[in-house]
Amino acid sequence: MKPENAKKHVVIVGGGFAGIACAKALARHCHMHITLIDKNNYHQFQPLLYQVATSQISPSDVAYSLRKLFRGCQNVEVKLGEAAAVDPAAKTVTTASGEVYQADYLVLAAGARANFFNIPGAEQHAFPMYSLDDAQRLRSRILQVFEEADRDPRLVGEGALNFVVVGAGATGVEVAGALAELIRDSMTQEYPKVPVHQAKIYLVDYGHTVLSPFSDKAHTYAEKVLQNAGVELRLKTGVKEVTPGHVLLSDGAVIRTRLTIWAGGLMASPLAGKSGLAQGHGGRIDVLPDLTAAGFPGVYVLGDLANIPNPSGGALPQLGSVALQTGQWAGANILADATGKPRTPFQYNDKGIMAMITRSAAVVEIGEKRHELHGPVAATMWLGVHASLMTGIRNKIEAFVEWTWSYFSQERGPQLLDRTDLPKIDWADD
Amino acid sequence: MKPENAKKHVVIVGGGFAGIACAKALARHCHMHITLIDKNNYHQFQPLLYQVATSQISPSDVAYSLRKLFRGCQNVEVKLGEAAAVDPAAKTVTTASGEVYQADYLVLAAGARANFFNIPGAEQHAFPMYSLDDAQRLRSRILQVFEEADRDPRLVGEGALNFVVVGAGATGVEVAGALAELIRDSMTQEYPKVPVHQAKIYLVDYGHTVLSPFSDKAHTYAEKVLQNAGVELRLKTGVKEVTPGHVLLSDGAVIRTRLTIWAGGLMASPLAGKSGLAQGHGGRIDVLPDLTAAGFPGVYVLGDLANIPNPSGGALPQLGSVALQTGQWAGANILADATGKPRTPFQYNDKGIMAMITRSAAVVEIGEKRHELHGPVAATMWLGVHASLMTGIRNKIEAFVEWTWSYFSQERGPQLLDRTDLPKIDWADD
Repeated sequence: MKPENAKKHVVIVGGGFAGIACAKALARHCHMHITLIDKNNYHQFQPLLYQVATSQISPSDVAYSLRKLFRGCQNVEVKLGEAAAVDPAAKTVTTASGEVYQADYLVLAAGARANFFNIPGAEQHAFPMYSLDDAQRLRSRILQVFEEADRDPRLVGEGALNFVVVGAGATGVEVAGALAELIRDSMTQEYPKVPVHQAKIYLVDYGHTVLSPFSDKAHTYAEKVLQNAGVELRLKTGVKEVTPGHVLLSDGAVIRTRLTIWAGGLMASPLAGKSGLAQGHGGRIDVLPDLTAAGFPGVYVLGDLANIPNPSGGALPQLGSVALQTGQWAGANILADATGKPRTPFQYNDKGIMAMITRSAAVVEIGEKRHELHGPVAATMWLGVHASLMTGIRNKIEAFVEWTWSYFSQERGPQLLDRTDLPKIDWADD
Repeated sequence: MKPENAKKHVVIVGGGFAGIACAKALARHCHMHITLIDKNNYHQFQPLLYQVATSQISPSDVAYSLRKLFRGCQNVEVKLGEAAAVDPAAKTVTTASGEVYQADYLVLAAGARANFFNIPGAEQHAFPMYSLDDAQRLRSRILQVFEEADRDPRLVGEGALNFVVVGAGATGVEVAGALAELIRDSMTQEYPKVPVHQAKIYLVDYGHTVLSPFSDKAHTYAEKVLQNAGVELRLKTGVKEVTPGHVLLSDGAVIRTRLTIWAGGLMASPLAGKSGLAQGHGGRIDVLPDLTAAGFPGVYVLGDLANIPNPSGGALPQLGSVALQTGQWAGANILADATGKPRTPFQYNDKGIMAMITRSAAVVEIGEKRHELHGPVAATMWLGVHASLMTGIRNKIEAFVEWTWSYFSQERGPQLLDRTDLPKIDWADD
């Protein structure tokens, strides 16, 4: 499939930050025709997924129809499809249902998936936190274990109220903090028959600290906030095994639990392995400074799918802001290339890093500046920063309404145990 | 399971309008202990489900946590569980997971399910519209057929854009009208490659008119509004067969379609057949005027699960307002009975009937008074009436915000094709 006229055809695989930023950068240029392919009909706003998992906001607050996003753009076509194979030499993408897209410029931005590092049982039994589907399943699972403990409080002795979060990066810290607040603010009132005070959240990481990319002061602050919220830190500790009933740690400790949340790292989407391109660290595709794959000047690889060279050495981290900027930069390089100008090396504009530890405590670090945010200010400022990244005005307003409502009313959002396709909890195991 | 003290134990099965109204009526009375059992952890606000199905509002706008609803009520216990068997003589309920609840007063309010009237293929292939799960599946299915037509526009010739709504009562009319608007306002813009103007919605009913409980003037008005919206009426026509690829009508017509929406009537929840109580019309349990089952003065059957005698003859219709009032009345009768006073016969306070045909046209009939509502007034008034029935203030505010936002911006809500467990569309069959 190729546009009939003389336009250049840009085929983008993936409607995450990188893919939509690239499509947006090209949308105003009428000599370009863009086809954006995603396996979902929606963009998912990943930084807020942990709030869906912990019933703070609704799934629809973090998902936005891709067709709606590009509704005004005549030269952007959205296609629902799963990219099954890529031929970088021919610049074609073949979908699982057999459609073949012929590109002049191919943009691969299929994102990442959880990296379970081949730890036995992790992929089968842990709940990852990368997609909207993951977040909805996790929300139902959290409610499911509380319901089970309510049905039979003896199950608390079987680890029903133990929660293990693996990985103390931003996602792991945010989900652990939000889960602690969910339990403290909501579950204690809604499950009066359950000994909710016995609930324990373990945050496990093989590193020496939580939030390792942040400064030492932030480490100390975040650890203090988490411990005050009741999160038990297990640092310098790896995970050796996950079963339906427990987690085995590298120090020999066994934590009985029915819910292990996996925030332990990312690897490239399976598409990387089907692209015919060389994979580097994390299964990601190594790219040149101009974001193209070596030897394929018409093939761009962006965001979490790529190892993007950091001018100061190594690769850039897997962050939404990196993905977004690679998308914009690739768009500019495609425009340059199409008009005979040279492609330029990607320069990351570091806007800082942030993590929301609890609803009233966040850390934001911009270059050398470090901010600790406390109280309602933390919540609203943090939301403002995210809102500025958000893709649709509708999302911004609704998430803001729901968020502030929920913040000031101390009332929880949609605690819907609505996933009926979860595996049954096996209480017999261990 | 029974409260340990001398309180009377009221066990309510079902957290719909009837069940929660009964629990609320008893909640303030400290000599009562109430156990409310539901297979979901949420109450679903059924009158707005068609808006979830047509992407106007989010699933969480029509679902409300039962635990949250009764959080302030010390004497109400919410239990997640599916009632598997009822013994009306012993006044016990046994759940699928084996818990047994011993009641002093047993209240059965398990609601209804779609009645497919044994029409071949209907249960297997049609999409019902009774639960939140139904509405979410229907939303994804609507988007799925449009995505398929976008992938291969030739499928329009296979009936991809034909929609058959079976049943022209309030639910059928509302879903047909809302679907017509979804297609006209949104799909035409979001699927530029699809010949959306070829989409057809058929509204099929064996009766002589749409909205039969309403007056003749309302029939004429509703039919005109629906036809103007592009809905094709097939009245005095039954359905003989539903297959994955078509619907066969009683007049011999075959409509090729991949989406048959079933709003063709209700029958009692399967619990009725497991209750040991005599079932009447629609599989519902016949009750005495005081809402108890004949021969079992401690067993109440409410709402859509019951055939409730209408003092003017016949049975009362299956309406949310009837369910709500039977719940309140049963609560009062239980209180009377427990204090040695006589139970009184249920008196339905008819507050009228209403249906929203499109976003700018509704009919409301209160006794002899008939109202046609047009334009923004229709929408907001209609919402106001529903809001007054709503169970949680949070829902009210959010649904209102989302609704008015969506109304005035003409922007559609969460068009998320997020159900991955739908059956694959079989294009081979016709």
